[in-house]
Amino acid sequence: MNEKLFETVVAHAKNSGFVYQGSEIYGGLSNTWDFGPLGVELKDNIKKAWWQKFIQESPNNVGIQSAILMNPQVWVASGHVGGFSDPLMDCKNCHTRHRADKLIEDDSHGEVNPGGWTNEKMMEYIREHKIACPDCGSHDFTDIRQFNLMFKTFQGVVEDSKNTIYLRPETAQGMFVNFKNVSRTTRRKLPFGIGQIGKSFRNEITPGNFIFRTREFEQMELEFFTRPGEDMKWYEYYKNFCMKFLTDLGVASENLRIREHTQEELSHYSTGTSDIEYKFSFGWGELWGIADRTDYDLTCHQNTSKQNLEYFDQETGEKFLPYCVEPAVGVERLMLAFMCDAYEEEQLENDTRVVMHFHPFLAPVKACIMPLSKKLSEKAMEVFHIAAPIGACEYDESGSIGKRYRRQDAIGTPFCITVDFETENDGCVTVRHRDTMEQERVAINELQDYLAKRIRF
Amino acid sequence: MNEKLFETVVAHAKNSGFVYQGSEIYGGLSNTWDFGPLGVELKDNIKKAWWQKFIQESPNNVGIQSAILMNPQVWVASGHVGGFSDPLMDCKNCHTRHRADKLIEDDSHGEVNPGGWTNEKMMEYIREHKIACPDCGSHDFTDIRQFNLMFKTFQGVVEDSKNTIYLRPETAQGMFVNFKNVSRTTRRKLPFGIGQIGKSFRNEITPGNFIFRTREFEQMELEFFTRPGEDMKWYEYYKNFCMKFLTDLGVASENLRIREHTQEELSHYSTGTSDIEYKFSFGWGELWGIADRTDYDLTCHQNTSKQNLEYFDQETGEKFLPYCVEPAVGVERLMLAFMCDAYEEEQLENDTRVVMHFHPFLAPVKACIMPLSKKLSEKAMEVFHIAAPIGACEYDESGSIGKRYRRQDAIGTPFCITVDFETENDGCVTVRHRDTMEQERVAINELQDYLAKRIRF
Repeated sequence: MNEKLFETVVAHAKNSGFVYQGSEIYGGLSNTWDFGPLGVELKDNIKKAWWQKFIQESPNNVGIQSAILMNPQVWVASGHVGGFSDPLMDCKNCHTRHRADKLIEDDSHGEVNPGGWTNEKMMEYIREHKIACPDCGSHDFTDIRQFNLMFKTFQGVVEDSKNTIYLRPETAQGMFVNFKNVSRTTRRKLPFGIGQIGKSFRNEITPGNFIFRTREFEQMELEFFTRPGEDMKWYEYYKNFCMKFLTDLGVASENLRIREHTQEELSHYSTGTSDIEYKFSFGWGELWGIADRTDYDLTCHQNTSKQNLEYFDQETGEKFLPYCVEPAVGVERLMLAFMCDAYEEEQLENDTRVVMHFHPFLAPVKACIMPLSKKLSEKAMEVFHIAAPIGACEYDESGSIGKRYRRQDAIGTPFCITVDFETENDGCVTVRHRDTMEQERVAINELQDYLAKRIRF
Repeated sequence: MNEKLFETVVAHAKNSGFVYQGSEIYGGLSNTWDFGPLGVELKDNIKKAWWQKFIQESPNNVGIQSAILMNPQVWVASGHVGGFSDPLMDCKNCHTRHRADKLIEDDSHGEVNPGGWTNEKMMEYIREHKIACPDCGSHDFTDIRQFNLMFKTFQGVVEDSKNTIYLRPETAQGMFVNFKNVSRTTRRKLPFGIGQIGKSFRNEITPGNFIFRTREFEQMELEFFTRPGEDMKWYEYYKNFCMKFLTDLGVASENLRIREHTQEELSHYSTGTSDIEYKFSFGWGELWGIADRTDYDLTCHQNTSKQNLEYFDQETGEKFLPYCVEPAVGVERLMLAFMCDAYEEEQLENDTRVVMHFHPFLAPVKACIMPLSKKLSEKAMEVFHIAAPIGACEYDESGSIGKRYRRQDAIGTPFCITVDFETENDGCVTVRHRDTMEQERVAINELQDYLAKRIRF
């Protein structure tokens, strides 16, 4: 996808009610986004698809919803208080602030990856390569300071360090701290997974690419616990499972790849990490991270909390900390990939149409009900109420049928349903299909089943 | 419901995986809760029911999802920066902090309602009635200070007032600031509503009653915009609509009442506000607030943002700010009411059973699949995969069938499905109903439809 097409998709998303700038009437708030009527339906459908495949249809997995506000010791144990930070330096001349690793990446046009470098190594590189402040051109920087990416707030009536808490930077820790609670109340045996969908917050210095990287975002994470030794099998399983999830929902295989992390990139506790990447116009971007986290997280929490988090195997009598495989993905990122992948400006014989080829399960509007004439609006509204229980539907009685079709194509509605003057006699409506533009006659009393069957995932 | 029964429901919720203490292994974080496998399903089903009835099945209404982090001017315009605060006073003797209005309420056993009083009037009342510090008995209080209930945080790398932002204390303002965006992109005509489900945060001094009042909570709010003059009609409409929502989902009418706010209680901008209350053991508690907010919010945002937020009526050529009717409800509160209302310790002939009489649409587990013997587990797992797409299901092969039934009754599972030795021959399973305990034989190839029909709302 070329740069221009990306800009087109973003403009289309803004103009048609997928995404608005956050707090727009007040000039916005840097890098926040609101999701409009179409955006919220698309997002919800992505979340439903994930919940269905990762939780509901799996006999091994259960869901939870943990609080955004957690005891700060959670983030001490997880390493976020100590290590979840960006290396920042100020320009002494113009007083702007920059990420040192970003300066190096940009200067080398992405050839150099300073991930894992010490502050000293980055400073040295910046001096040696005479990297200048992007704002004023000066070479006079302060030393690098580590800036923690967690948003902090205060609970209670006093604002001091004792009352400092954080907005969670990830949902995963909610699963680890509840590992025992879930084992106890569900009587689950290994292997089993605990999943969650929810908001996380990261005070990123350089968010960007529309909704690709935002400070407030939704995650869908599964922590899948196994016996040590069985983890690599499940790591492979979930790599395939996530990939299949995407292609089953219609993402083109040629726009997807799996990138295995090199030994250098791997976290010290991980025995394997892969990113499923999507080919955006700005390059391959990470969608899904699948990581074998071993028993690292449970060990950290056991040590910090002094609670025994071991699993007890009733059959063998063994006690041990399970290993954990984590597939983690951001909802907004998936949404962006689905939108980019679905968008087409299709050349027809005498016309061009914008069409979003969403999988019907994902489509924000399932069906639009259109009376051929306003005289038929009462009957058409009856049909609306028959269709609406299967998913969000629209009702449109203004403009020519052709124009109404184009409006629905542009937002990815799979079915347009026309009520015409024959409807009263034959009890049927015309269903027009988005991708093929073919039409067929369907009995109203079979319509709900007809739609439900074609929307399933 | 008596106090003891409430304690029983809370204990049951904790023991069976509806609700855990937040960050429990670290000793918790005051008044935060995590929702376990059953709790998250129940909550999600409540949200689905709301979305279906308030958004999806209404041809007038659309949904959005606005950001939790908004431009701070939003909260200036809405009055939250200036006025969303609790009146606090410190005991000079033991240095504990108290809400003045709460001291008065408790002292008068709820007979006196200081809502709307000035600080001076509250101080005077406390002196006159010689109200003592509940912790040490002293009468020596500081003056009242107003304490703002919004959680604050800092966006960007500097922690100063310029970068101070707030966690939203309500979702409603997201609808008001997007009123123009939604009108523009959906081409909606009045009356229409904009709804949202999402998290809000209030730094309450005295949260409590389990999940009834928590600092972090989920709201379901609809802002329904009408022509001035048509607002009272819709205000009545939504009072009935919300009440019907509750009773259709099985809440007993005798535990519900509508309480119209007195002239004294009404916000200055509201021409009518009603609370739908539920009879908890601790008294009648507010579930749903339905308010006619007139054009107050849009006026405030128009004045503060200097943006024209008027609606343009294409037919009459008029321009005006619409009036707004708002039904607002908290998810956790509804959940608590549904749990209290569903819980029963039923006396049977030779036995007692705990049963949660959830509406099947709300039930966290729709069906539990049970092989009569472990030899039938393969077939039972096939049946699990047939049932699972209709909603969360469990699989249980341990213990006697009677014991397994009781476990499912206690969490409100409407259908237990037994695979027995006849199943292989006749292609049928036994479906046992939670409330009546009656059983019937259902063909496996009709099972999915059978369940789907009985779960609908």
